[in-house]
Amino acid sequence: MHKIFVLSEDDTRQLLELEEVIEGIENVYKEKSSGSGKVFPLVFHEFEKGVADMDIKSGTLDKMGVYGLKLVSWFGNNPSKGLPSLSGIVMLFDSSTGLPIGTISAEHMTGMRTGAAGAIGAKYLARNNSEVMLMVGSGHQASYQIRAMQTVIKGLKKVFVYDPINFESAKGFISKFEYKLDSIEYIPVQDLETSVANSDIIVTATPSKKPLIMKEWVKAGTHFSCMGSDMSGKQEIDENILKSAKLFTDDILQSVSVGEFEVGINNGTITKEDIICEIGDVLNGEYDGRTSDNDITVFDSTGIGLQDIAAGYIAIQKAKKINIGTEVKF
Amino acid sequence: MHKIFVLSEDDTRQLLELEEVIEGIENVYKEKSSGSGKVFPLVFHEFEKGVADMDIKSGTLDKMGVYGLKLVSWFGNNPSKGLPSLSGIVMLFDSSTGLPIGTISAEHMTGMRTGAAGAIGAKYLARNNSEVMLMVGSGHQASYQIRAMQTVIKGLKKVFVYDPINFESAKGFISKFEYKLDSIEYIPVQDLETSVANSDIIVTATPSKKPLIMKEWVKAGTHFSCMGSDMSGKQEIDENILKSAKLFTDDILQSVSVGEFEVGINNGTITKEDIICEIGDVLNGEYDGRTSDNDITVFDSTGIGLQDIAAGYIAIQKAKKINIGTEVKF
Repeated sequence: MHKIFVLSEDDTRQLLELEEVIEGIENVYKEKSSGSGKVFPLVFHEFEKGVADMDIKSGTLDKMGVYGLKLVSWFGNNPSKGLPSLSGIVMLFDSSTGLPIGTISAEHMTGMRTGAAGAIGAKYLARNNSEVMLMVGSGHQASYQIRAMQTVIKGLKKVFVYDPINFESAKGFISKFEYKLDSIEYIPVQDLETSVANSDIIVTATPSKKPLIMKEWVKAGTHFSCMGSDMSGKQEIDENILKSAKLFTDDILQSVSVGEFEVGINNGTITKEDIICEIGDVLNGEYDGRTSDNDITVFDSTGIGLQDIAAGYIAIQKAKKINIGTEVKF
Repeated sequence: MHKIFVLSEDDTRQLLELEEVIEGIENVYKEKSSGSGKVFPLVFHEFEKGVADMDIKSGTLDKMGVYGLKLVSWFGNNPSKGLPSLSGIVMLFDSSTGLPIGTISAEHMTGMRTGAAGAIGAKYLARNNSEVMLMVGSGHQASYQIRAMQTVIKGLKKVFVYDPINFESAKGFISKFEYKLDSIEYIPVQDLETSVANSDIIVTATPSKKPLIMKEWVKAGTHFSCMGSDMSGKQEIDENILKSAKLFTDDILQSVSVGEFEVGINNGTITKEDIICEIGDVLNGEYDGRTSDNDITVFDSTGIGLQDIAAGYIAIQKAKKINIGTEVKF
């Protein structure tokens, strides 16, 4: 009799460790670069414009030996019913037999894999001596971004947190942030321009539709991990920054159509050819990342289904080992 | 705490009744016709040509209040490992909140919904006085087709079973068929031409890539439910039959690209415009089906994801009522 694993939100919170997820997402980028990781076409449906939609991201990681999908639903009116607006589910299958492996609640997992992505951008593209991180956005994702960054950038000394809506949110975020390290100072900031000028690594994770950070503010050597733009029309940083920066992405196709590079390409500030490569090509050593301490580097992370598949697979493998989750006959 | 239902193969075998599935699939066709049922784009991936592939069919049934997907994997080498070559999983979500409802093993469910489809074709398009069914193909699907046909065609007196590979299979199938009715005679046949000429309803469910049934054999008034063609290049009946027949389908797009009508359209025997309508338009009364006892009618059932969503939803609703299946925190 075949069995599948079902992992709840609580289970994934117990199971996933950032170090393991980061390693898994690095393998995702490598597999995508080498061709053994393949992204299948996105399915998107809007039930009602601005009110409710869903998408299905799917793909295969042949080396890891797993394929599958994530379906994410967004129902904007849910909070008024006491329900989460975002919910999602990941389904995994064994590449050698096609049999289902398991079903995983996707909320925490998505936070972890997105945090890992932002940190991997900095790990491979930021200056080695980076000490100051600026987190733009103090929502759900900010916590994952900072935790992951602390994991990969060992010399981190300061984390600025800026909220584009109000300063209180940034303060509140820091006071509640549970993963503070003694070696790091966490500072809510109001003056974005000065904070940008004083930062080595800038992570943006907002739903912004206009640039928050202007070119004139950015010092040479800065690295950006842009996490927020994942839908047409979204933009977090001035497209003129892109013009003089070295550009990397997790997926060129998504980057030019729905990512941070979309606006700049559409208005002619940059071209698709200005994108040096996908980040996996840097991890695989096929392209250089940063080549000088003066480079401004931008990693546009649009999010790919393969990240969810890898993160889910890590959770399932661990669940089997340490006996967490529910095994159900299928 | 949110919970989802997990239904195994055994659960679906206990839960699903053909009468209910037939009613559900009729509602699917009606929803598709009226526009409240929407089919999302198909995702298909071939891991290795002729060896292993998978597809994701998805869509929404707004009236029924459910959306979701079915992922089906086909791994041709599985039987040599003692595993099924086909496996699949259905995931359902609540249209009012986006929250996951459940996960259902898809094998038996797919058989039931496909049997229902073939029978619905006959229910709405065959002559009222139909008494003889010819089942072409004696594989896994034949049993579901005959069971469903017995459910909707109350005057059925004879069921011929023909196997295109060998007669013993047809004989063996009938001897093992568990759902025989006393009012019906079940006859394995070797002479396809004579059997076609003596049948009122012909159901084809084979993997054939060339026509098995020729135009000259077919008497006026015959109805065909063509279930086998669901991939480019497949064909079960002579395309010249289509030329003089009234043509219906579950999905026009699939029908002309991967269904029974593909070959005839590609070689110019028929055109896309010769397809009268989708079957849901007949169920909704927007188009006539058969208008004379002399019409030859053809229903090309290519299979749509909405059938799986409906069948899965029926199973889940019943599971909740009679306490079958596994409820898992999520």
